[in-house]
Amino acid sequence: MAAESLNFPEQDAAKLEPYLPPPSTTSAAPASQTGPSSSLPFVTLTFATSLDSSLSLAPGTQTVLSGPQSKAMTHFLRSRHDAICVGVGTAIADDPGLNCRLAAPAASPQQHTGIHQPRPVVVDPGARWDFTEDSKVLRLVRTRGGRAPFVITAVRDPPAARAALLERHGGKYIVLDGAAGAGAGAGGGEVEGRRRFGWEDILRAVAREGLRSIMVEGGAQIINSLLDAPDRALVDSVIVTIAPTWLGEGGVVVSPSRVVDEAGRPRPAARLRDVLWHPLGDDVVLCGRLLQ
Amino acid sequence: MAAESLNFPEQDAAKLEPYLPPPSTTSAAPASQTGPSSSLPFVTLTFATSLDSSLSLAPGTQTVLSGPQSKAMTHFLRSRHDAICVGVGTAIADDPGLNCRLAAPAASPQQHTGIHQPRPVVVDPGARWDFTEDSKVLRLVRTRGGRAPFVITAVRDPPAARAALLERHGGKYIVLDGAAGAGAGAGGGEVEGRRRFGWEDILRAVAREGLRSIMVEGGAQIINSLLDAPDRALVDSVIVTIAPTWLGEGGVVVSPSRVVDEAGRPRPAARLRDVLWHPLGDDVVLCGRLLQ
Repeated sequence: MAAESLNFPEQDAAKLEPYLPPPSTTSAAPASQTGPSSSLPFVTLTFATSLDSSLSLAPGTQTVLSGPQSKAMTHFLRSRHDAICVGVGTAIADDPGLNCRLAAPAASPQQHTGIHQPRPVVVDPGARWDFTEDSKVLRLVRTRGGRAPFVITAVRDPPAARAALLERHGGKYIVLDGAAGAGAGAGGGEVEGRRRFGWEDILRAVAREGLRSIMVEGGAQIINSLLDAPDRALVDSVIVTIAPTWLGEGGVVVSPSRVVDEAGRPRPAARLRDVLWHPLGDDVVLCGRLLQ
Repeated sequence: MAAESLNFPEQDAAKLEPYLPPPSTTSAAPASQTGPSSSLPFVTLTFATSLDSSLSLAPGTQTVLSGPQSKAMTHFLRSRHDAICVGVGTAIADDPGLNCRLAAPAASPQQHTGIHQPRPVVVDPGARWDFTEDSKVLRLVRTRGGRAPFVITAVRDPPAARAALLERHGGKYIVLDGAAGAGAGAGGGEVEGRRRFGWEDILRAVAREGLRSIMVEGGAQIINSLLDAPDRALVDSVIVTIAPTWLGEGGVVVSPSRVVDEAGRPRPAARLRDVLWHPLGDDVVLCGRLLQ
């Protein structure tokens, strides 16, 4: 990880501070030292889109949208959360590192020497993620550049070889009951594999691991499900980066489900309050909290 | 029009200045006093969207997205352009005033007494817009709060009663040749009514009327066609207001046509350069110029 080390200016960090997990909900210590919590973690929903609200040009494609300053911000956010969550689709498509590559000094207000590394949490109801020891997230563990993932699945017996590989790196499968099918009211999460989790169940499992803050990064299914009622009540903070680009029709779009009033007329699906727009290079960072 | 008069702060106006038509391309004088021009007008593409890039909740629905400061900005922009252009869909759905309701002092750098009113230009290939004397834009003419529209149509003999009504107010139909069908390469404009114009033809017609700057406000078809190549080369400036709201699936979306490279892989469709993000109330205003 020495190849790339990012800096996020203190004055930018100060602007974002009101939208970050308070220190009481973040810990640089390993989960085993902090112990489980009965309350749900602080949830930050964060992602980068184009002007036409696309995360990427096509499903399964990774598209670089935002500039270097926005990238540094993402890693600053990672330094301030116990966990970082993506869906299985993102894990498969992007082979992401899910680590923090921030340079040491600004990484933590606690001034500890090492960089805090967030715990990757991959939502994978059907245990579809076929990681190997060459997967970036595991390579980073071996070079002390990141933590091993916790993979949340509804499969009762995940593949033994993969479970062993995870455990050798310090990660594990966490088996949760998933509601079958995509029935209404089952809550958000992940519909692929014909199973889906409720977000509250996911977050309770995260809290049981002693992880007190989590940033949810993607993909579109994960994000859209957290923007929908009632699960958006679980989101404490939203931080969106917007790049001055239109990806065009056919992209992977962030847009919550349609909401209608009693008369069947559509009404706005979600809105932010306590809004801050912070220009960062050619991009803008939008911070806010979801109106319930 | 005395009921509502808007103010746009000078310091905000100063930020937008580099993206506005230079004084040489704007005139507060009537077209008949400035005479026709052989060059194309300065084109500002401007609109307001949600975070999920929607202009409105559903086709034919007007959705208030942006806050009072952004509304004042729109009227400031109207004070700085000779013409304001919308498509027939917007004219029918919104019954728009297409005038400037800015309070007098800030309306013009030339310090003239009255407020400059832009000339409404309605792109209506099939002459579908069934305005009456009660249409807002004509009521405003009678109260000296706006100008009568020029309606650009491909219909050789527009309805005589409507043509007379327009002319009584100082407006008119402008008949242009429209390409039949929605064939590729016919350029942007308006596909409804099975006719479409090329933007260059529209803008030449505008220039022939002595109008040296035009802001294009909507709707989605009009906007998307101007974001597509090659017509985006005709756009001098883009000013987008974004509100911190997601309208949800099913909205009327701004997103240009998909662009692919030689290998058929999608690539970003359009990008802005010379970017300025200017927060305005709860909204942000994005100014830029289209990369060609």
